[in-house]
Amino acid sequence: MDGAEEGKKKISEAVIRRLPRYYRYLSELMSRNVERISSKELSRSLDITASQVRQDLNQFGGFGQQGYGYNVEYLQKEIGRILGLNRRYSMIIVGAGNLGRAICNHQNFDRRGFHIAALFDVNPEAAGRELNHLPVYGMEQMESYITEHRIDIAALCIPSNRAQEVAMRLCSCGIKGLWNFSSIELKVPANVKVENVHLTESLMTLSYAIKESER
Amino acid sequence: MDGAEEGKKKISEAVIRRLPRYYRYLSELMSRNVERISSKELSRSLDITASQVRQDLNQFGGFGQQGYGYNVEYLQKEIGRILGLNRRYSMIIVGAGNLGRAICNHQNFDRRGFHIAALFDVNPEAAGRELNHLPVYGMEQMESYITEHRIDIAALCIPSNRAQEVAMRLCSCGIKGLWNFSSIELKVPANVKVENVHLTESLMTLSYAIKESER
Repeated sequence: MDGAEEGKKKISEAVIRRLPRYYRYLSELMSRNVERISSKELSRSLDITASQVRQDLNQFGGFGQQGYGYNVEYLQKEIGRILGLNRRYSMIIVGAGNLGRAICNHQNFDRRGFHIAALFDVNPEAAGRELNHLPVYGMEQMESYITEHRIDIAALCIPSNRAQEVAMRLCSCGIKGLWNFSSIELKVPANVKVENVHLTESLMTLSYAIKESER
Repeated sequence: MDGAEEGKKKISEAVIRRLPRYYRYLSELMSRNVERISSKELSRSLDITASQVRQDLNQFGGFGQQGYGYNVEYLQKEIGRILGLNRRYSMIIVGAGNLGRAICNHQNFDRRGFHIAALFDVNPEAAGRELNHLPVYGMEQMESYITEHRIDIAALCIPSNRAQEVAMRLCSCGIKGLWNFSSIELKVPANVKVENVHLTESLMTLSYAIKESER
């Protein structure tokens, strides 16, 4: 597949949501020195039907070969390229409470190309300190820091009632993506991308599954 | 719609994923004393097409009326019932690190019927303390606590390399749902439901959106 071919197709959101799972699992296989895998094995490990796996992966030009399966390293690299993981992103965390700290302690992000540069907090006691070897600054320094350090992504780990206002400040200084942990739906310009981690909604989905299993 | 009618239909996962968003927004409208809403307004506020909104809501027997729209309170209640929110769930948090603390401090869960009863941690210094007025116990007390207090859900806020083992312990004592924050795909018996919050995958989805917007 080349870039032009990829450009022609509009990949559905459902497929996009599955790509990181493939990517993670393929990376795990690579670390175990597994060189190839069949759609059947991928299917079993990821709990996605084998035909869905084939359909998903065929969308990108069909990396599989009959009787051979998929080359793990090649497929991982290609999916990484599609996801935009063949570059590094710089990220800040807004809000140095428990959630912000949990994110800054996370082991996987840097390994996947998401470099956390700093945290910002409204609390003057938090600002000026370090968390996990990262500097914590006051909110008033946020805009200049983003411009100066060409920050791509901001993780919003602040209370919902302040999220929209802070989002607009972030958008005004060239942020490209917002990783929103607040429970509100942010309204931002079209050029800024938002990915929501709505925890209460996730729990509601679990509630549905439990309810259904009890019927 | 009655239970029998609902039972006949298999609701797709994509629809299920949207229901909590409707529910949250309708709850917000109720708190603002809004009594009715059109599919067009729902569409605009949730960034879902109006025809998708109508299609989603029609699946549950069509609560809307031509020229009137939807009765906010009725629709919120019905969606809540479909999601299984018309009951209370008791929940424990396994892992009292930053993430576990962030979850136990979250304001919304109890309001939505998810009552956090206790935390469990492998660290003997954490055990015996209180966090946000909740008791923290050692891991060895987990099984008996779950049985005694009829716990429905466990939030797994522990390192990925311990998640599968702890999940099996939880399954063995009758837990109904696992809310998995570790980065692995848990293997559990079919009667235990798993909802994943895979943070790295969420970041990868954001990466894709940023990459696409830059093309």
